[in-house]
Amino acid sequence: MDYEAYFSKSIAALKDEGRYRVFADLERQVDNFPTALHRSGPNQAREVTVWCSNDYLGMGQHKAVRAAMHEAIERFGTGAGGTRNIAGTTHEHVLLEEALATLHGKEAALVFTSGYVANETTLSTLGRLLPGCVILSDALNHNSMIEGVRHSRAEKIILKHNDLADAEAKLAALPKDRAKILAFESVYSMDGDIAPIEGYCELAEKYGALTYLDEVHAVGMYGGQGGGVAQRDGVQHRIDIIQGTLGKAFGMVGGYIAGSKATIDFIRSSAPGFIFTTALPPVIAAGARASIEHLMASNKERAAQQDRVAQVKRRLAELEIPVIANPSHIVPVLVGDAAICKQVTDKLLSDFNIYVQPINYPTVPRGTERIRITPGPLHTDEMIDHLVASLDAVWEAFGLPRSREAIVTVAA
Amino acid sequence: MDYEAYFSKSIAALKDEGRYRVFADLERQVDNFPTALHRSGPNQAREVTVWCSNDYLGMGQHKAVRAAMHEAIERFGTGAGGTRNIAGTTHEHVLLEEALATLHGKEAALVFTSGYVANETTLSTLGRLLPGCVILSDALNHNSMIEGVRHSRAEKIILKHNDLADAEAKLAALPKDRAKILAFESVYSMDGDIAPIEGYCELAEKYGALTYLDEVHAVGMYGGQGGGVAQRDGVQHRIDIIQGTLGKAFGMVGGYIAGSKATIDFIRSSAPGFIFTTALPPVIAAGARASIEHLMASNKERAAQQDRVAQVKRRLAELEIPVIANPSHIVPVLVGDAAICKQVTDKLLSDFNIYVQPINYPTVPRGTERIRITPGPLHTDEMIDHLVASLDAVWEAFGLPRSREAIVTVAA
Repeated sequence: MDYEAYFSKSIAALKDEGRYRVFADLERQVDNFPTALHRSGPNQAREVTVWCSNDYLGMGQHKAVRAAMHEAIERFGTGAGGTRNIAGTTHEHVLLEEALATLHGKEAALVFTSGYVANETTLSTLGRLLPGCVILSDALNHNSMIEGVRHSRAEKIILKHNDLADAEAKLAALPKDRAKILAFESVYSMDGDIAPIEGYCELAEKYGALTYLDEVHAVGMYGGQGGGVAQRDGVQHRIDIIQGTLGKAFGMVGGYIAGSKATIDFIRSSAPGFIFTTALPPVIAAGARASIEHLMASNKERAAQQDRVAQVKRRLAELEIPVIANPSHIVPVLVGDAAICKQVTDKLLSDFNIYVQPINYPTVPRGTERIRITPGPLHTDEMIDHLVASLDAVWEAFGLPRSREAIVTVAA
Repeated sequence: MDYEAYFSKSIAALKDEGRYRVFADLERQVDNFPTALHRSGPNQAREVTVWCSNDYLGMGQHKAVRAAMHEAIERFGTGAGGTRNIAGTTHEHVLLEEALATLHGKEAALVFTSGYVANETTLSTLGRLLPGCVILSDALNHNSMIEGVRHSRAEKIILKHNDLADAEAKLAALPKDRAKILAFESVYSMDGDIAPIEGYCELAEKYGALTYLDEVHAVGMYGGQGGGVAQRDGVQHRIDIIQGTLGKAFGMVGGYIAGSKATIDFIRSSAPGFIFTTALPPVIAAGARASIEHLMASNKERAAQQDRVAQVKRRLAELEIPVIANPSHIVPVLVGDAAICKQVTDKLLSDFNIYVQPINYPTVPRGTERIRITPGPLHTDEMIDHLVASLDAVWEAFGLPRSREAIVTVAA
């Protein structure tokens, strides 16, 4: 077959459907977060305010984190130089895993090259190796969990989103002694709603399920030490495996799981996506640890984030700009049409120097296309004023619907 | 079920089989590569020489690479702060992908969080989306390729290792117009043998297959600019997709593919392991680019590596210590028994301060357990003297067999 023609045709089809993605070429500026230089062509660059970063607390520019990285580079060099088993475990990995275990009140932790890999390889390994395992997976779980479940080839049961009654009915229908994993997230990143974690813990205990909780959009931001929603809710000791990321609120890259010694050792010894890959650079481990330790001790960033989020939500509500209601730090502004969503964000960028990304199908269901805003501690009052006024102007320009009521969750 | 008991039992079984892995806790020292501090317990640390790193050229301590990282941290901060599509594409990613495309003489390149992910998600995406695709995969391909093929759910045909006649027979048996991928590596990391790349290109052209070449153990080290074995052999323009890593000879972390614009755009737009994950930190991209650019211009490191490798191979041959013959930079010393292999490496570490890792099943077939030595430009003559004398002493102490003949490839 003509592969080149096939690839070109597929790309053309994406463009026709309006689903072709052009990546914004950005250059964040350490002394000027959350501002970035946006390049739209050769010799065309201007400053924009980033309103959609998952570096939720701005730790990506934090002095302590940068200092830890500089020091690590001069002490240990750049990469790890091998898999964890072959020359790639540096003392920084050991220390980082100790810090993560402490953060979550667990016996042990294990670091992966990304949160994606942590989910994919842990779930696929558990589902593959636990005899007769069935995985009960929330309908809105992230692609990395879906792929992990799929690759495990274990039986899969999809749970209605955040619905304890549905989960209980499905758990009760299974033999109590059968291996089962209850897999869900705390904060769902596109709607910003939060799972009933304690309820899931009760069900898991009652029906003998292993709990697997993805806290990637919560670590650093919830709980007294930034351990996530399970920590905030006082139930982290009841979760078997907590999965998190170093790439969002901690401002770095990488993922991890935390749990009992035996659980972690089992995954460490069996998961191909952990075993057969080069370890994260010690400089990344050192930076991540500095960030975690800072956020374990400091509430300042969390408080400032919550304040910024509350302000943005309140101001948009006053202007009747439709925000999907949720109790988290995520501000999803509903547009409801893929083409218009793209035009809105293009206009925000070109006319107002505001960078947000349109969120379209397949990331969210058709008809729920949105702008996903993530206010953080480094957004100033002036930036908020400008954001709100800009959205108001764009809403006016496009004749977009306003709504007095907060939009209740729109996802399936 | 009792999950905790199940995990503990599994770990105990691994220990019984001698397959339980304890990671060496190392701390490399920038001014003293390839020396590292090895910690065997609290307050127990001593210097060892690392002889098994995949930081093949010692670029992990290179001044230009460290300088690029320091600068990037102060300019852009630490992490990328998002997926490539949502706020995570920094200008450093754009520049790195341009450098990689140039390195391989291709139109475009795409960076992934690891070489593992590059293989897994590219092959699984191609196998899943190319209609009716069949993947012909070398028997000794790396786990990341195996998993990619498995996850694609495409039909799979295993090829006899590096055997052109077998590949031709299997290609000829398939309809010419059927989509087919010929997936193989250049340097196989455990035996150190090298694929007949030109022969595969001829077959692919004759039978209409897409070629997918993993050069992770070759990039930086082979070819006039470090583009890999395909570059050295003058055939890189005939390979459709070249896959490589930033985590070995380039001394960093991350993986990539290079190919035509349409191919790269297709994978960029379709591969879940690329789309749904946080981008590599700009500091990693900057460091990797500095390393690539250095090795494109400098032959010094490659020449020194080849010299060190030749010396080690020659000296071991003189002592009749059995090395698996190969034309690459990898020096596999055959032991042939898992327990003895572990004892040999333990003794090298405890009595001679030499760190090498035993390579046992399932990484290599039972009966071919080995020590895998990777000499590099930073190993001095004295270090080589010490390594050779130490191996000689250990061979004597364990009464291990000597061999006048080079061992011909032992793998299946």
